[in-house]
Amino acid sequence: MNTTGPDSPSRRELFRMIGSVAGGAAMYQAMSTLGFAAESTYRGPVDLSGAPRGASVLILGAGIAGMTAAYELRNAGYKVQVLEYNHRAGGRNWSLRGGDTYTELGGFTQQCEFDEGLYLNPGPWRIPYHHRGLLSYCKKLGVPLEAFVQVNYNAYLHSSKAFGGKPQRYREIKADYQGHVAELLAKATRQSALDAAVSREDREKLLESLRDWGALDADFRYGANLLASERRGYAKEPGGGLTARPLPSQPIGLTDVLDSGLWQGIPSGDRYDMQTALFQPVGGMGRIGEAFARELGPLIRYNAKVVDIRQDVHGVTATYEDLAAPGTKLQARADWCLCTIPLTVLAQIPMNVGAALHAAISAVPYSSAVKVGLQFKRRFWEEDEHIYGGISYTDLPITNIAYPNTGYHSAGKGVLLGAYIWGQNAMEFTAMPPALRVRKAVEYGSRIHPQYPAEFDNGIAVAWHRSPFTLGCYGMWSEAARAQHYDNLCQVDGRIALAGEHASFIGGWQEGAVTSALDAIGRLHQRAIARGKKA
Amino acid sequence: MNTTGPDSPSRRELFRMIGSVAGGAAMYQAMSTLGFAAESTYRGPVDLSGAPRGASVLILGAGIAGMTAAYELRNAGYKVQVLEYNHRAGGRNWSLRGGDTYTELGGFTQQCEFDEGLYLNPGPWRIPYHHRGLLSYCKKLGVPLEAFVQVNYNAYLHSSKAFGGKPQRYREIKADYQGHVAELLAKATRQSALDAAVSREDREKLLESLRDWGALDADFRYGANLLASERRGYAKEPGGGLTARPLPSQPIGLTDVLDSGLWQGIPSGDRYDMQTALFQPVGGMGRIGEAFARELGPLIRYNAKVVDIRQDVHGVTATYEDLAAPGTKLQARADWCLCTIPLTVLAQIPMNVGAALHAAISAVPYSSAVKVGLQFKRRFWEEDEHIYGGISYTDLPITNIAYPNTGYHSAGKGVLLGAYIWGQNAMEFTAMPPALRVRKAVEYGSRIHPQYPAEFDNGIAVAWHRSPFTLGCYGMWSEAARAQHYDNLCQVDGRIALAGEHASFIGGWQEGAVTSALDAIGRLHQRAIARGKKA
Repeated sequence: MNTTGPDSPSRRELFRMIGSVAGGAAMYQAMSTLGFAAESTYRGPVDLSGAPRGASVLILGAGIAGMTAAYELRNAGYKVQVLEYNHRAGGRNWSLRGGDTYTELGGFTQQCEFDEGLYLNPGPWRIPYHHRGLLSYCKKLGVPLEAFVQVNYNAYLHSSKAFGGKPQRYREIKADYQGHVAELLAKATRQSALDAAVSREDREKLLESLRDWGALDADFRYGANLLASERRGYAKEPGGGLTARPLPSQPIGLTDVLDSGLWQGIPSGDRYDMQTALFQPVGGMGRIGEAFARELGPLIRYNAKVVDIRQDVHGVTATYEDLAAPGTKLQARADWCLCTIPLTVLAQIPMNVGAALHAAISAVPYSSAVKVGLQFKRRFWEEDEHIYGGISYTDLPITNIAYPNTGYHSAGKGVLLGAYIWGQNAMEFTAMPPALRVRKAVEYGSRIHPQYPAEFDNGIAVAWHRSPFTLGCYGMWSEAARAQHYDNLCQVDGRIALAGEHASFIGGWQEGAVTSALDAIGRLHQRAIARGKKA
Repeated sequence: MNTTGPDSPSRRELFRMIGSVAGGAAMYQAMSTLGFAAESTYRGPVDLSGAPRGASVLILGAGIAGMTAAYELRNAGYKVQVLEYNHRAGGRNWSLRGGDTYTELGGFTQQCEFDEGLYLNPGPWRIPYHHRGLLSYCKKLGVPLEAFVQVNYNAYLHSSKAFGGKPQRYREIKADYQGHVAELLAKATRQSALDAAVSREDREKLLESLRDWGALDADFRYGANLLASERRGYAKEPGGGLTARPLPSQPIGLTDVLDSGLWQGIPSGDRYDMQTALFQPVGGMGRIGEAFARELGPLIRYNAKVVDIRQDVHGVTATYEDLAAPGTKLQARADWCLCTIPLTVLAQIPMNVGAALHAAISAVPYSSAVKVGLQFKRRFWEEDEHIYGGISYTDLPITNIAYPNTGYHSAGKGVLLGAYIWGQNAMEFTAMPPALRVRKAVEYGSRIHPQYPAEFDNGIAVAWHRSPFTLGCYGMWSEAARAQHYDNLCQVDGRIALAGEHASFIGGWQEGAVTSALDAIGRLHQRAIARGKKA
């Protein structure tokens, strides 16, 4: 082992020590000097060389974590078997398409009636450029990607309590907030209010930058002129010929922008997980799970509901029901087990592990997200409102309306994400039967897009707390739970290791599943080698 | 004629009067009240009904303006003929692909050696969502579109004079500028320096918004913590399993951000013409020109160099050389003429129009843009640097490096826009032979992407001032020239009207060509009807 490598405990401890004594800046300096900074957790294919001959791993769950592990362990020479509850692979990596059927807890069955080529991603729907683990599997499995649009300047920010309930364009709110901020800071700077914080040398540069960035005029004012319109849009757009002269639009005043609360929507595309470039697989997020399933073929056993996990000194046995032949109990056994079952479900399955791991499994509540897909007879958001892709935000319970990032400008029907809800509103939607969720999404959405009632075709709604295979959307670690239980959740317990987005610091993202799986199998592999040598 | 319509002179005069007396805000109020605000110049298909039987139009130039006009006039029943200098249609709407040959003024001939499927758009390369005229023709002609990425948070902002010449990531400069601005404004607000400008009610909302928008901590400070890292990126990214804990990165100080000048690159995606959504045709911008050409078929005569334009009381005659049979002079004649020849070229062609139009034609200098396309043996910007699409900006003469917005993540070769230059630097590149432009682009680009020398394959360079069919890139109206000559340029002179991006307020954009063509043929049509009735 290379003890001076970037992962060696001594270096990591050193950095932690520098950080706690001298603060982040000093830590960063030290890390940069030693070539440690800005490294990503994903460092390329996991090294599993030297797998003991004949060693086997049982993987519970054919989601992204389970299939990442199965792919790597199989390639490393392990005997691999995957048990999956659903009749399909992917887990939350999933696209609902026309002809698909989905039965949730409570017995409601929905038939998806979308037209050919249209889909809803009930779970993950975007892949940031820095989710290098997941992206590497897209490449290996030949899953083509296209651009996902997070921020659309012509999409809406909507508050039912502001501007008479009339949705505002993102570009207007962003330009006006930025313009007012720039004008105010320019004013304070010129009044010498910030002389203690801004040096004389910086002062002129700051003012020059504010003018450019905030679209201020020569007097450092933001107003109803073509400078501002060149950001927020015009009253009359520039054109060609004799009716071409543009007319400026009127910015929204600072008080109205602040009162509306719509400024909360401005930085959505600034967040590291939602910055450009973002991707979606062509044809739906489910293409990744489907590609993994094709690759793994008979290694996955479907309709296998795990009811008991038991380890002994030689290996691990999982007992499962064959859902295709109700009442049939079968067993699978291997030397090692990687369990990727969501904690909500796993907490209900008997498993002989230590108290610390048991406690960790029960410590993580799950998000109660709801997504509703709505098919419309035409793409009116493009045709009438010139919104191509991206997301509108609202304070109505539906929270988000997201427009398809593909098939731009095409004729015929289209599917919107008509609601993406979490928290208390999601619990209310979860309590409704699916048809009512769809109806409510249409009702609320009509307040933003009045075309809804006339153009609505059909819909489907997935409430993750009623999903039999996850009982929730993703793990929501509190800081306190993280401090007490996270390491315990990730430690190998005898012959069993856990993986999944819940065993990561990227909760709710597929990259959390990938990196947690790679980390866990790396440690299982070390144990397997150690055992192999003893044997 | 409907004298109360949105275009009627009386209403337009009214607005102008209100605007000049009471300022933009009052004007906007008046316009909104009368339903005039926020309208786009493009209002759907032009109405050319009632074309006089047998009336004919000669169109000079098969660029976007000329072909838009030809398409509409043909559909309206006019006899249409188009003369085009090049052996292809499209004009500046153009994609260079492997096998293409391009000879510039001065005699240099370049052979494009790009691999199958790769291209350079020497001219326009992006289509904003609000360029509704051009978009409508993409739809009519069945040209599929995909997302163009303007802002990539992981692309570079580079100054040779800052940070030791090391390129910075866009996300770092943006987050840090925004964070510092928010911190400074919060400080001024809390010190009551802005009490005259910000009411007590607004104060708390402003502070709350600044904290959220600027990623400030509880004390309204921007610093080396996970809040800021969640915008600018981490020193160590969050991951899965036991090595997953993220570490914060260290922001760049305000002075360094200001000194670097890199803040100039921040608002590029805020500009109305470069906001999301932006598009590019699948396969290259030239797909639009090619689709128009297929649609118009034999109406276009290629290799036709117009050398004289002469109108009389009955019609217009253009004399042209057939470049396929050198020395051959031919004539084309029609009742009316729409001339879309760039002003640089048109100024050298004898044409009997009035002095005002002659003066206008000579009043507009053309931009001297240069674009260089570079093919590399692999997509190292994606593989090594995780930059998928978008643009890096530099103070080096190459100005821009733009990454392909398609084929993300694919293996094999790729073509970059290795330089997009205007102004003085463009004149210097124009003076070089093409091979030297390519070599210089590789040389400068190596300071941003050190992989360049090892991975470079081949390149091609288009200097628009040496383009025989435009002698420049696009018209650059000064405010003074606009005031004096613009209306004269657009007025129908007898039987001749001009169109093109130069006859618009959207200079350099294809939408200017489309809207100017539609405006001009609408007015030509009115004249034709008036003459038709007289006859």
